[in-house]
Amino acid sequence: MPSEFQLIARYFTRPARRAVLGVGDDAALFRVGKEMELAVSTDMLVSGTHFVADADPRRLGHKTLAVNLSDMAAMGARPRWALLALALPEAEPAWLRAFAAGFLALADAHDVELVGGDTTRGPLNLCVTIFGEVPRGRALRRDRARVGDDVWVSGELGNAALALANQQGRVRLPAAVAARCLRSLDLPQPRVALGLGLRGLANAAIDISDGLAADLGHICERSCLGADVWLGQIPCSKALAKLVDRSVAEQALVAGGDDYELCFTAAVKRRAQIEALGARIGLPVHRIGAMRKGRGVRLLDPDGRVYDHQIRGFDHFG
Amino acid sequence: MPSEFQLIARYFTRPARRAVLGVGDDAALFRVGKEMELAVSTDMLVSGTHFVADADPRRLGHKTLAVNLSDMAAMGARPRWALLALALPEAEPAWLRAFAAGFLALADAHDVELVGGDTTRGPLNLCVTIFGEVPRGRALRRDRARVGDDVWVSGELGNAALALANQQGRVRLPAAVAARCLRSLDLPQPRVALGLGLRGLANAAIDISDGLAADLGHICERSCLGADVWLGQIPCSKALAKLVDRSVAEQALVAGGDDYELCFTAAVKRRAQIEALGARIGLPVHRIGAMRKGRGVRLLDPDGRVYDHQIRGFDHFG
Repeated sequence: MPSEFQLIARYFTRPARRAVLGVGDDAALFRVGKEMELAVSTDMLVSGTHFVADADPRRLGHKTLAVNLSDMAAMGARPRWALLALALPEAEPAWLRAFAAGFLALADAHDVELVGGDTTRGPLNLCVTIFGEVPRGRALRRDRARVGDDVWVSGELGNAALALANQQGRVRLPAAVAARCLRSLDLPQPRVALGLGLRGLANAAIDISDGLAADLGHICERSCLGADVWLGQIPCSKALAKLVDRSVAEQALVAGGDDYELCFTAAVKRRAQIEALGARIGLPVHRIGAMRKGRGVRLLDPDGRVYDHQIRGFDHFG
Repeated sequence: MPSEFQLIARYFTRPARRAVLGVGDDAALFRVGKEMELAVSTDMLVSGTHFVADADPRRLGHKTLAVNLSDMAAMGARPRWALLALALPEAEPAWLRAFAAGFLALADAHDVELVGGDTTRGPLNLCVTIFGEVPRGRALRRDRARVGDDVWVSGELGNAALALANQQGRVRLPAAVAARCLRSLDLPQPRVALGLGLRGLANAAIDISDGLAADLGHICERSCLGADVWLGQIPCSKALAKLVDRSVAEQALVAGGDDYELCFTAAVKRRAQIEALGARIGLPVHRIGAMRKGRGVRLLDPDGRVYDHQIRGFDHFG
């Protein structure tokens, strides 16, 4: 069986590019420009909690990095470097090769450099720390939404939650639909280009990992405001629209995590620029509500009535 | 049971100090000075691999940060910020409170700011990413040892390995000795002051986590050199010196990890300055060998003979 150091060398060591010092020392080293701030974030994925034990390793490698890139997107930061800490029950070369391929393909697509990490024996656990650059004072924070801001989301919501519901037998999707939904769950596309484009346009932003209601709730809480969301305006996939069971559909739309789209707020005068940005990068953006005084997220049905079903986001210890 | 967000708020959220933005957003933000490089490192501690499942949580909190601070010490970097990702089987308040107390007490002692993290459900796994500052080009790297350099270590080696051997029943220590050794294992003191003082004095450095032979071996490998180490010169605790079983004693001294002392190389002309540094910070430093052309670490017994026992460092997948 290959050693820990062989594993790192075999699957993860590549020559340093922008970094002063990459894999192979006690720490990585890199410079940030005079006018730049570094955005850093860490996300841990655990077998049995975030993915099934026999998950496809290449897709898992993609997703492990994707959820971290999504945090950079939500900050308006340009992702630059990553660290990867792995706990593995055993060193299985085929698994590691596929995992590294998925991880590094996405890293290359975003010009992100893997600069270090840790490998240890233990129950499967994948922990990435990501670093991004953002010009000083221009990061998209959660605490800067203003009263009257439009609330926007990118892409479509609910497909990942639908895939999960299908896996768990709560719905039964046709095979082609299930496969499409599964791509949303397994291969989320971090909205980095959108985040970069929203610098100077959006007031606040977050990525939707725990569900729209919960994540917009974080913007509300940090900005000391409330939000109204028109249920009928939330962009919904065809698969979801066709779903007979409305309660599963609404749950997936409002509380389904794992889509990794961005939710952001912006002044009304920015509408045309935001629409143009979406068109330029080929990603639909949708106005779904407005920030208001008060607290919490209020969902309004097509008749303007407050929707009072029990909907909540994902919380590992809730 | 408290929610994930309550957990973070309750045990880990403190107001941002130096950071532009701390806990509570998608990422933390911080500036580094114009002339500074950022050193970053991540270390994962897994239940059953790095510590026993019923380990004292306060000590575990200390150690989780200590092993990461030790990486900063080994780089000559001043530790500044940390991220903490936790997988927990359940959210047990008493455990979390004690863990946070141990973690944050050590963070405060080193003026390190916890700026973010992640909390999830899963088998107990503790993953820290640490960030330190170092003036450009002055980091203590592994790959800069030179032929003729002295090889030095700080403190005493082997106590942590002896505690482990005692726990595993391979030796039987008197209670008072066992308790002292256990402090080395559970509460390692990262040698940050030594690392900072060695900037400009040492040519190469590493922290001893996998055992002296293995870690000095990393310096050799990265510097394309060999090293001779005089077994009799390695600083050894009283407990270890008294041990009847010489094979366990030598194993602990040369291959025992977890002491988190520093091993470094420096030019012969630096001897007086390094001795003075050790005296100033109250940490003994010992010359134990020399770098030479060739490859690998050669252990020499008091008669100058090459010591050929099978000794190797710790490797999770070896």
